[in-house]
Amino acid sequence: MKLATLRTADGTRAVRLDGDTLVDLGYADLGELFAEDDWRGKAAAASGTAHPVEGADFAPVVPNPSKIVCVGHNYTGHIKEMGRELPGHPTLFPKFAETLIGANDDIAEPAETDSLDWEVELAVVIGKRVRRADERQAADAIAGFTVMNDISLRDWQFRTVEWTQGKIWEATTPVGPYVVTPDEVGGVRPALEVTTVVDGEVMQRDDTGTLLFDPVFLVRYISTAITLNPGDIIATGTPAGVGNARDPKVFLRPGQRVVTRIAGIGACSNRVVEG
Amino acid sequence: MKLATLRTADGTRAVRLDGDTLVDLGYADLGELFAEDDWRGKAAAASGTAHPVEGADFAPVVPNPSKIVCVGHNYTGHIKEMGRELPGHPTLFPKFAETLIGANDDIAEPAETDSLDWEVELAVVIGKRVRRADERQAADAIAGFTVMNDISLRDWQFRTVEWTQGKIWEATTPVGPYVVTPDEVGGVRPALEVTTVVDGEVMQRDDTGTLLFDPVFLVRYISTAITLNPGDIIATGTPAGVGNARDPKVFLRPGQRVVTRIAGIGACSNRVVEG
Repeated sequence: MKLATLRTADGTRAVRLDGDTLVDLGYADLGELFAEDDWRGKAAAASGTAHPVEGADFAPVVPNPSKIVCVGHNYTGHIKEMGRELPGHPTLFPKFAETLIGANDDIAEPAETDSLDWEVELAVVIGKRVRRADERQAADAIAGFTVMNDISLRDWQFRTVEWTQGKIWEATTPVGPYVVTPDEVGGVRPALEVTTVVDGEVMQRDDTGTLLFDPVFLVRYISTAITLNPGDIIATGTPAGVGNARDPKVFLRPGQRVVTRIAGIGACSNRVVEG
Repeated sequence: MKLATLRTADGTRAVRLDGDTLVDLGYADLGELFAEDDWRGKAAAASGTAHPVEGADFAPVVPNPSKIVCVGHNYTGHIKEMGRELPGHPTLFPKFAETLIGANDDIAEPAETDSLDWEVELAVVIGKRVRRADERQAADAIAGFTVMNDISLRDWQFRTVEWTQGKIWEATTPVGPYVVTPDEVGGVRPALEVTTVVDGEVMQRDDTGTLLFDPVFLVRYISTAITLNPGDIIATGTPAGVGNARDPKVFLRPGQRVVTRIAGIGACSNRVVEG
């Protein structure tokens, strides 16, 4: 299944993609759906109002996750371009719910930065409450996968040793458009091409099968420390090719369009505008 | 006013301290109270059920904040003991709602660590929604102050360059017992003695007046990046004397009691138990 949260005149609605229509599932958003014990059965069986895909206005797949945990240093190529050694543990940092925008929303460049950068990422969406998950529990807790563009303000990110302040900016981070269930992408450790294209130029290209720490590992690792709730999002890190690691550095500018895509899952396509 | 969130047989209740009683304010918790426009007037006027202070079971002051932003490197002495230079910007990292416990709850040491450490902190609780707050808006947005013991798993904190994974562990971080309004502590930049005592031995002692980045500055700084909502918590950093910086290092062990206190605000007193 491909599931989404759609903005409508009556507020947001959780929907399922059927051909060229989006079928209403009876919930306000995917966070509310995933909180149901049998959400898979309910999502598959629902037959509510059909909305056309064409012109659909996508909200963040989960508009209000209880937590968003992002991973740094997870593709070999990106680690090398940043001049670092292969790590023994995943590097974790946060975003917050207000940081998210829909898959096709504009990214408003904050006036306080001049180094807005892209990071395409495979994002895991949690479908079941887990703590200290074992292998099977972690796999079962993955509702599906989506695309996140982990927009980063590099000047703020590197003001201090902790990256948080460069990662949490309001309404900067597209996520969506669909949460795609694992059965549609070859399972809970998908090997899919991941790309970023800025104004037609390919900036990042890699394969999610080369992740050092795979989705199941990350659910296990993070849930060792803290409960993961339905709707929580784990962004699994970005491959080589970010603007900050180029020579000379390249950053996003108003008027540009950045497209972050994962084969079989979908794409965020966002215009950069002045904030 | 001194306000708290009390656990009762009927769930949590927001209360006001009046002498030796806690007066019910008509809200489930302080997060719900602070979401009201005129929460100060409502909290002052309320005259609900009185609960005795003696034997009170305190919940985290706000059980479910939308975000918890913590600050590192904010007392000169602590920065020096960690071998660092005075920073030009505050260092930010997160906790999550599940990380919090009540002011007198046990701290269960996770089996996965052997370096559980204390950090007494003045915590700011937000009482008004703000983004890009100016000086006056930032001061107005401070509902009050409370005590946080920013419990840290040093082994996990220093696995990678990002501290997040050592800071977010489930049910490890006491916060409370009271949110004390600024008028009771000399305003929005209080100068109060702050201490940590472990089994009767003073481990940290400093003054919140020596913070490099004061509460108003921090509200302004963080709200530049992202909206602060009523009930959100900013932990302002810890002074010198953490266990990890001692020679030899000292960590909390089951059976010990750690008391983190700020004069005029209150104290968290927590027994460490096996997790």
